[in-house]
Amino acid sequence: MSSHDIFLGETIGTAMLILLGGGVVAAVTLKRSKAQNAGWLAITFGWGFAVLTGAYTAGGVSGAHLNPAVTIGLAIEGGTKWSDVPLYLGSQMLGAMIGAALVWVTYYGQFHAHLTDQAVLEAHQHNGEEGLVDPKAAPKAGPVLGIFSTGPEIRNPVQNLLTEIIATVVLVLAILTQGLNDNGNGIGVLGALITALVVVGIGLSLGGPTGYAINPARDLGPRIVHALLPLPNKGGSDWSYAWIPVVGPLIGGALAGLIYKLF
Amino acid sequence: MSSHDIFLGETIGTAMLILLGGGVVAAVTLKRSKAQNAGWLAITFGWGFAVLTGAYTAGGVSGAHLNPAVTIGLAIEGGTKWSDVPLYLGSQMLGAMIGAALVWVTYYGQFHAHLTDQAVLEAHQHNGEEGLVDPKAAPKAGPVLGIFSTGPEIRNPVQNLLTEIIATVVLVLAILTQGLNDNGNGIGVLGALITALVVVGIGLSLGGPTGYAINPARDLGPRIVHALLPLPNKGGSDWSYAWIPVVGPLIGGALAGLIYKLF
Amino acid sequence: MSSHDIFLGETIGTAMLILLGGGVVAAVTLKRSKAQNAGWLAITFGWGFAVLTGAYTAGGVSGAHLNPAVTIGLAIEGGTKWSDVPLYLGSQMLGAMIGAALVWVTYYGQFHAHLTDQAVLEAHQHNGEEGLVDPKAAPKAGPVLGIFSTGPEIRNPVQNLLTEIIATVVLVLAILTQGLNDNGNGIGVLGALITALVVVGIGLSLGGPTGYAINPARDLGPRIVHALLPLPNKGGSDWSYAWIPVVGPLIGGALAGLIYKLF
Amino acid sequence: MSSHDIFLGETIGTAMLILLGGGVVAAVTLKRSKAQNAGWLAITFGWGFAVLTGAYTAGGVSGAHLNPAVTIGLAIEGGTKWSDVPLYLGSQMLGAMIGAALVWVTYYGQFHAHLTDQAVLEAHQHNGEEGLVDPKAAPKAGPVLGIFSTGPEIRNPVQNLLTEIIATVVLVLAILTQGLNDNGNGIGVLGALITALVVVGIGLSLGGPTGYAINPARDLGPRIVHALLPLPNKGGSDWSYAWIPVVGPLIGGALAGLIYKLF
Repeated sequence: MSSHDIFLGETIGTAMLILLGGGVVAAVTLKRSKAQNAGWLAITFGWGFAVLTGAYTAGGVSGAHLNPAVTIGLAIEGGTKWSDVPLYLGSQMLGAMIGAALVWVTYYGQFHAHLTDQAVLEAHQHNGEEGLVDPKAAPKAGPVLGIFSTGPEIRNPVQNLLTEIIATVVLVLAILTQGLNDNGNGIGVLGALITALVVVGIGLSLGGPTGYAINPARDLGPRIVHALLPLPNKGGSDWSYAWIPVVGPLIGGALAGLIYKLF
Repeated sequence: MSSHDIFLGETIGTAMLILLGGGVVAAVTLKRSKAQNAGWLAITFGWGFAVLTGAYTAGGVSGAHLNPAVTIGLAIEGGTKWSDVPLYLGSQMLGAMIGAALVWVTYYGQFHAHLTDQAVLEAHQHNGEEGLVDPKAAPKAGPVLGIFSTGPEIRNPVQNLLTEIIATVVLVLAILTQGLNDNGNGIGVLGALITALVVVGIGLSLGGPTGYAINPARDLGPRIVHALLPLPNKGGSDWSYAWIPVVGPLIGGALAGLIYKLF
Repeated sequence: MSSHDIFLGETIGTAMLILLGGGVVAAVTLKRSKAQNAGWLAITFGWGFAVLTGAYTAGGVSGAHLNPAVTIGLAIEGGTKWSDVPLYLGSQMLGAMIGAALVWVTYYGQFHAHLTDQAVLEAHQHNGEEGLVDPKAAPKAGPVLGIFSTGPEIRNPVQNLLTEIIATVVLVLAILTQGLNDNGNGIGVLGALITALVVVGIGLSLGGPTGYAINPARDLGPRIVHALLPLPNKGGSDWSYAWIPVVGPLIGGALAGLIYKLF
Repeated sequence: MSSHDIFLGETIGTAMLILLGGGVVAAVTLKRSKAQNAGWLAITFGWGFAVLTGAYTAGGVSGAHLNPAVTIGLAIEGGTKWSDVPLYLGSQMLGAMIGAALVWVTYYGQFHAHLTDQAVLEAHQHNGEEGLVDPKAAPKAGPVLGIFSTGPEIRNPVQNLLTEIIATVVLVLAILTQGLNDNGNGIGVLGALITALVVVGIGLSLGGPTGYAINPARDLGPRIVHALLPLPNKGGSDWSYAWIPVVGPLIGGALAGLIYKLF
């Protein structure tokens, strides 16, 4: 694959992933959205079909990793050259930031309506104070941060890290082994569909504690955009948690590459 | 492809798309429907499987564009001859109007029960008045217009247009790139399935602000039928908004065709 | 295909279809079921995956029609010999009755708990009386008849028949045209999946008025079983409506066969 | 297939199945989970995509039985050697126990928050007492046992056993017959997807009475882990019911193998 293809495929593919993935959380969270309160099933299917859309679009261009954990796993397994890894990771971060910015454009009026609504802000403040009573409770860092990045329900670095590692091993192992029962041409059309449904499954099953980042670019890129955007009353970007959804998935991806070598 | 095939495939396929797509909104909206209040997930899956049904039926006949934005994107990309474009667009509009009329036939008694129910009309009137307080709020144009055409939750032409453009770029880019990782024979059976799930994803993720027309024929055809049908208390057809779900998707489709040329 | 294969495939396949299809309605309806009140989306996906299971199991044996309307449509199109039609129809009816009886076995305790619950019976009685005020309202024929057979929300033979015809045209046309974009070997594995999702779509979009029989065997077979089973307080089997979900789908299947000939 | 492949594939695949399957019940059940109260549809899709993930990962390694009932059915049909059966079963039990332990790691904080919540424990106690009034009602054995193993809504060994037998026949028959309309290479990629959706369907349609074990390892392995784990206030492991989700699925798998021989 040429550098041109990797750059273009990963940037556009990851932008679509985050536009749709962040989009579904915006749709379900924000006031004046037709999908408000559509529930957890909508969020998990929305993220899954975000993977499908990004992977399907970029699959024939860059192989559609769209995730540093997948790139690391494939580099360990041998399917991706280590010299290509920096370009993959940089393009994924750029794409994730573009995608997060596009969520803001798409839901511009809804963000404003939500963040200037007194009832919303008071409810949020109340949750924050309640959080102080139980020091392990996640201090809600801002009423819309969840549209950009993940956060734990119970703030426990050891458990949170383990949860992200376990969930990412599942994801990357499923992607790596597809070469064993597929035609071996990388992530084909059916592979994109099944990976997408595996991501729905990871969300439904393992997303409860931390919101399943399972992708460092998916979490860090939009968190930077959250910090930069001129949103009123947006609150902090919870940087103290930011390392977990980066380190956990990277460990998970590497671990999956090593487990795969057992086969 | 012969003109006969294009006409037949696009007319029947788009009629099935709108029959099922408008149908699911009728099912979830109207009184005396078994599916009343089935929720946003039902609407988005319903529209997705409407795409699947129309694309699957017409795929082998006309290529199953079923959407002027797709036809424009394919014409720019080179997959469709410009001289065939008018026939595609005309057939899609005809099919969309037939489909909308069939929704009315299928839900005939439900439309009547809903539109003659005093409580429904009062709730709608109340929403309309409330809308006047906030001039940016969408004046609800009629209690059943949403079964036929889309409308914004917040009436802001710039944001509404951008939302439709962004959502359509996602749709058409995903369709165009499938030739890169598929067998290149146009929208095959698996392509129809994946496109359908991409549409579910667009609905879940980007449908919150405007209801995701992403297809000029899907919005304009049924709006004309809404204006013509002898429904009691149906309210206006919101013609002041009607240009956005036509112009936005056309721009989005063309943009996707141009982005595709980068690859 | 041999008579042995047709008999075995259609009987077992239709039994699985009705066991799972009736089963999901029992699961969502009956007291003391873990799925009680799981909603319309559960019912429509449940029926769709019932089609998938039956079609996937019987596909390689009998072609997996599982539905007289499909058999009629295929006979008109030419894919099925008219001399095989009686065996197909008889096996489908037998299978549907076996499937309905298995639903009763599977939910034996739940049926008893539901039908001997005073609150359930009073609520049902009340609905029935309310029905008398509006002569077009569907008299609820028994609190569990809906697990076996379909019934209209608004009793209007013309609309009910048209709804069943339209929904069945969609189903059978989608099945017939798959030969145009598939490999033409009848209902293959991917065809079974897509047909199943089309059925989910028909349920979501067109099921609101009548509950989408779209299959004479699916409705008549279980209705006979409802009439025969020794269920306490089961109410009548609503024979006055029984002809519509038989005649409507047969007309729809034939119409789809004729429309297909246009291609 | 080598013993190494069978051991590795079945252990890892079954561990993924139970991690995701038990995980979704934890996600929907436990306090402080983002998915709490996500509903029955979330549980059934979660279990289905758990099957997909395990089968997709292990498919090319061990054939991905992941279920003693499938192994027995395949041994009777002839696709699996009887001499390999003990290794399959042992690996499945080991994998199921690893998966259940990983659910505990992933939801560690949520388990603790739930099991030390006074309101949760009182509600559970109350259900237990209510159960004593109706001797056939299922005594709830512990507030989190359902995350590990199945239990009946109405405790009736004959019905419970029949329900498990019927549901397992559907599962194993669908898997066995795929060789008739697939390419015959065992559980391929598309086969894994369809089997997963069949499992969603079985859950939706037949899961109401007993919670659909349909897999002895899925139920017994996690039940042992439940008995061993140091969870506070966990209650008993309901060993009096434990034989039904073992014996029922084994009978169902064998029955499916015999029915298949009719074809």
